[in-house]
Amino acid sequence: MKFRFAVDVMPKKEISDPQGQTVERALPSLGYPGISQVRVGKRITLEVEADSEDAARDLLERASERVLSNPVIEEFEIEAAESSGAGR
Amino acid sequence: MKFRFAVDVMPKKEISDPQGQTVERALPSLGYPGISQVRVGKRITLEVEADSEDAARDLLERASERVLSNPVIEEFEIEAAESSGAGR
Repeated sequence: MKFRFAVDVMPKKEISDPQGQTVERALPSLGYPGISQVRVGKRITLEVEADSEDAARDLLERASERVLSNPVIEEFEIEAAESSGAGR
Repeated sequence: MKFRFAVDVMPKKEISDPQGQTVERALPSLGYPGISQVRVGKRITLEVEADSEDAARDLLERASERVLSNPVIEEFEIEAAESSGAGR
């Protein structure tokens, strides 16, 4: 069976995020004031072929830790997704 | 008041995603078979200062369309978030 997930990979809180800082500094002058705490990470959507959702999640957990994220500077979160749309 | 959101920005379905394809091709040889339909997008977490959640979302909707995404090749989705953690 195929199971659909999204993996959110964000820079750890204690790690500085230059991309987020750049976005945050640009927004007010572009007409969007009042936006703060901007952090930019990755969102990866995918399908996992496995016998059960638990097995799929287990494989994905390992792949997220070893391949999809860098555990030194990033943390990830896995969520089950339903639609096969690009968004989630 | 401050309202916390996450904005997910994904490549549109009809747009090819070379980063996702590269990840997908790499996974089996790294020991993670059975993963397909990989799409890599951005996840942006932030706080919006506004009088109401509706006003905050409205501002963020416009900022997402004009600054945080490229509407020609990307689509975005806004979700309200609770914690101020890096993840969501």
